[in-house]
Amino acid sequence: MRNHTLLTDLYQLTMMNGYFANNIHEDQVVFDMFFRKNPCDNSFTIVAGIEQVIDYIENLKFTDEDLEYLRGLQLFSEDFLGLLRNFKFKGTIYSVEEGSIMFPHEPIIRVKATTFEAQLIETAMLNIVNFQSLIATKASRVCEAAKGDAVFEFGLRRAQGPDAGIFGARAAYIGGCAGTSNVLAGKMFNIPVTGTQAHSWIQKFDSELEAFRAYAKIYPDGCLLLVDTYDTIKSGIPNAIKVFKELKEMGHEPVGIRIDSGDLAYLSQEARKLLTEAGFGNVKIVASSDLDEGTIDSLKMQQAEINSWGVGTNLITSNGCPALGGVYKLAAVEVNGKLIPKIKISENPEKITNPGYKKVIRIYNDNNYAEADLIMLEDEIVDTNKPLTLFHPIYTWKKKTFYNYNVREMLVPLFLEGELMYNHRTVAEIRDYTQKELSSLWPQYKRLNRPQLYKVDLSEKLWTLKHEMVNSYREE
Amino acid sequence: MRNHTLLTDLYQLTMMNGYFANNIHEDQVVFDMFFRKNPCDNSFTIVAGIEQVIDYIENLKFTDEDLEYLRGLQLFSEDFLGLLRNFKFKGTIYSVEEGSIMFPHEPIIRVKATTFEAQLIETAMLNIVNFQSLIATKASRVCEAAKGDAVFEFGLRRAQGPDAGIFGARAAYIGGCAGTSNVLAGKMFNIPVTGTQAHSWIQKFDSELEAFRAYAKIYPDGCLLLVDTYDTIKSGIPNAIKVFKELKEMGHEPVGIRIDSGDLAYLSQEARKLLTEAGFGNVKIVASSDLDEGTIDSLKMQQAEINSWGVGTNLITSNGCPALGGVYKLAAVEVNGKLIPKIKISENPEKITNPGYKKVIRIYNDNNYAEADLIMLEDEIVDTNKPLTLFHPIYTWKKKTFYNYNVREMLVPLFLEGELMYNHRTVAEIRDYTQKELSSLWPQYKRLNRPQLYKVDLSEKLWTLKHEMVNSYREE
Repeated sequence: MRNHTLLTDLYQLTMMNGYFANNIHEDQVVFDMFFRKNPCDNSFTIVAGIEQVIDYIENLKFTDEDLEYLRGLQLFSEDFLGLLRNFKFKGTIYSVEEGSIMFPHEPIIRVKATTFEAQLIETAMLNIVNFQSLIATKASRVCEAAKGDAVFEFGLRRAQGPDAGIFGARAAYIGGCAGTSNVLAGKMFNIPVTGTQAHSWIQKFDSELEAFRAYAKIYPDGCLLLVDTYDTIKSGIPNAIKVFKELKEMGHEPVGIRIDSGDLAYLSQEARKLLTEAGFGNVKIVASSDLDEGTIDSLKMQQAEINSWGVGTNLITSNGCPALGGVYKLAAVEVNGKLIPKIKISENPEKITNPGYKKVIRIYNDNNYAEADLIMLEDEIVDTNKPLTLFHPIYTWKKKTFYNYNVREMLVPLFLEGELMYNHRTVAEIRDYTQKELSSLWPQYKRLNRPQLYKVDLSEKLWTLKHEMVNSYREE
Repeated sequence: MRNHTLLTDLYQLTMMNGYFANNIHEDQVVFDMFFRKNPCDNSFTIVAGIEQVIDYIENLKFTDEDLEYLRGLQLFSEDFLGLLRNFKFKGTIYSVEEGSIMFPHEPIIRVKATTFEAQLIETAMLNIVNFQSLIATKASRVCEAAKGDAVFEFGLRRAQGPDAGIFGARAAYIGGCAGTSNVLAGKMFNIPVTGTQAHSWIQKFDSELEAFRAYAKIYPDGCLLLVDTYDTIKSGIPNAIKVFKELKEMGHEPVGIRIDSGDLAYLSQEARKLLTEAGFGNVKIVASSDLDEGTIDSLKMQQAEINSWGVGTNLITSNGCPALGGVYKLAAVEVNGKLIPKIKISENPEKITNPGYKKVIRIYNDNNYAEADLIMLEDEIVDTNKPLTLFHPIYTWKKKTFYNYNVREMLVPLFLEGELMYNHRTVAEIRDYTQKELSSLWPQYKRLNRPQLYKVDLSEKLWTLKHEMVNSYREE
C-alpha cells in the first residue's frame, strides 16, 4: 500500500508547525466529524470506511523521503520535522460502528488528541469516510428502488480512479449490493464477483449464435447471455433460446440473459414472453445501461420483467450528489485538564456547531424501531426507567415524550490513547449489520423522494450551553 | 503501490478464459478508446492519465495470491491460470500525448494486441483515463471562468477516495490549476502546494488577533490570513490590517486574506476598500467556499475583488458531470494477417462505432489555430500540397475545403509490441503542453455555456466503409 501519511492538506502541516512554535502542540483538543446534509436528499446516511480509517491511523509514519520533501518546501523548522519523524498517533477516537445509519449534525467520529495529531488526520479521515459513506448510501437507495432484486455494482470503468472503484465496490456492498464486477475488490474484501461477456465477445465470432454456443460450452452451468448486440428481439432472444435448449438437453440449467440497451421495460417484457413460451420462464433477466434508483423505480412501475440490475456510473460516482460534505470541527479544548467547549459561529444558523464533548444516543421503541436521536454531552445519563422528553432545537415548543423505550449509544471506541479497540469485522458482517440498521427505520424514512425527516434533538443541557455561547458571541 | 493486475471486470477474465478455450486468445484485435460526449457540455476534453496507463501496463503481473484467488472462483481452467502466471503485455498501443485536447468519437487510445491482452486492460485503462480527463477538463473550465487568476485545487477531503484526491490534483494541475492543497500529490508529481490555516487555528487561540499574530510570527513572509471565523468586516479584516501593519514595520510584505463564507462579491469589495485605505491595496484576496466555474463567472460579472480561487468539492468530483463516459470498442480483427474492420451496430445512431484501424489528424490554419479534425483509416495519407475537402458525416452536403493548412497526427506510439516508446514528461511539462493546446482553440470552443461545436469529420474512405457495413447489417 502507498504510504498515506502525506495525504493531507498543506495547512494541516503549517498549523502543526505553528502549534509547535507556540508550544501548544500537545494541548488536547476535541474534534467532531459530522455532516450537515444527507446525500441525494436521502433522510439518512450509512457511515462506511471506518476500517480504512483504522488502517490509515495505524500506518501513519513519516518516511525520510517524506521529510526530505517537506524540508524542501522551506516552511518547516528542523525541530518540527524531527517531531514528525517520531510521530505516532496516541489519541482517542470514538466512532460509530461501520455501517451505522446516522443523521445530519451528529458526531460520527469524535477525536480527542493533541492539536498536532488531530490536525494531521483530518483530511484523510474525511476523504475516506465521506466517499465510502456516500456510496453506501447511494447503493442503499438503488437497492430500495430494486425492491429486493439483486443489484450488482458494475462501475469500475467510470469510477473516479482505482481507489474509488475498489472502495466504492466495498461501500456499495455494505449499502446492500449483492456483488461487484471488480475482481480486485472481490479479492480484497471477499465480495461476490460477477460478470459474463461483453459485446466484443459476440462480435469476435462470426455470428451471435456461434458466440453464444462458445460461451455455453465453457460455462454450461453459469450461462447468462448478452442479447442486445444486434437485435434483442429478432436475434438475441431467439439465439439465446436455441442455446438454452441445447444446454437443457445436456442436463444444464441456463441462468439467463442480459439486456444492455434500448427500452428495458418493453424489451424485458417481450423477452420474458418469448422465454416463457420456450419453457424458460424462470431464467433471470438482468438489465444494465445507465441505471440509477430513479430509472429502476420507473421501470418497476411499468412492470419491467427484470430481476437483477447491473448499476455502473451513477452508483459508483453517486451521480447527482457526488460528495458527502462531512466536516471536522473543533468542539472543545483542554485547559488545565478540563475540557472547555468551543463553538464555531456563522451567519448561517445551520453552520453553527454543537459545542463540547458529546455523544449520540438512539431511542428505540419496543419493536426495535428507531424513534429519534439525541445529541448530548458525554457526562449526561439517560435513565430509561423515567419518561424522556425531547424538544425540537429550533421550534422548542415541538415536544415528544417517550415512556417505553430503549437507548443505545452510537459512538464506540476505535482507539484509546493510541491503542486500537475495534473488533475487525468482515465486509459481509458489516453489510448484515447495515441491513439490520435499515430494518430499524420506519418506511417513511426510506422513501426515495421527499422522505420524512428523522428527529435529531439536543439534550437540554447541550441546547442551553450552545445558546449561551452563541449569545455571548453576539454580545461581544 | 498496490498491484492493479486484478483491477478489471470479471467478464474480462471469463472472456479471456473463453478465448483460450476456443484457441483464439492469440488472435490480434484492435480496440479504440473514445468518448461520445464531452463532460459538462464542454466542447472538448483534455486527455489525461496516460502516464498512469503506462505504469499500469508495465506493472501487470499476476501474483500467486491473485491466481489462488481466481482459482477459488471455480471459473477458470488450470491451463488458463498458467497462462496468466506468465502474462506479459506484448501489444501495440498508440495514444494521444497526455494533455491533448480531443473530441467525441475520436480514438484517443488505440490498442492492437491479442484478444487476451486487449480484454484484460480495458477496465483499468478506462478507469484511469476517464477520471483524469474528466478532472483536467473540469479544471480548464474553472480556470477559464477565473480569467487568468490563479485557481488552487482544495478538494482532497471530498474527493472520491485517496486516488481521486491524488490523481485529481494531478489532472487539475494539467487542466490549468496553479497548485493544490494535497501534500502527497505535491510530493508525487512536483505540483506546487499551498495552504495557510483553518478556522480551528483561529478558534484555538483566545482571540482572532492573537491567532493572526501567532501565524504572522511563524510565517512573516507567507502571511495569508483567514478572516471569516467571527465577522469578516467587523473583526477579520481590521485584525488582519493590524497584523499586516506590524509585519510591514518589521520589513515583511503581507500576502493577503482568505474569505471562506458569505457573499463573496460584497465581502471582497469591502475588504479591498478597507485594505486599500490601510495601504494594503495590493495584497491578494483569496476566495473559497463551494466554488465552481458558474459561481466564479457570476462573481467576476459582479466585479468581485478576488484574485485567487480555492476550488474544492465541485472541481475534484466534477460535480454536475461526475464521469467521462469513455468506452473501448472493437474496431478490427486480424484474420490471416489482415485486419478486418468490425462495427458495433445500435438502434441509436450515435452509438454506431467507426470501424477499422484508424488515426486522427488535426488541421491547422497558418496561425496555428485548429480548424477541424479528420478521422481516417491508418493507411490514408493527406497531401497538404493539395486542397482538402471535409464533409459532415450526417449532413454530407455541408462541406468545407482547406487550401493553406498544416496537419498533425494525434496518435503517437506508447508501446510497440510490448516495448515502451513514450518519453516521460514532468506534470509541469504536460501542463505547458495543455496550455499550448488551449491556445490553439478559437474562443468560441472555450465558451463555458453552449460553446460552438468543433468539426470532427470522417475521411471519405472511412465514411464509405462505415456506411457499407451498416447497410449490409441492415439487409441481413
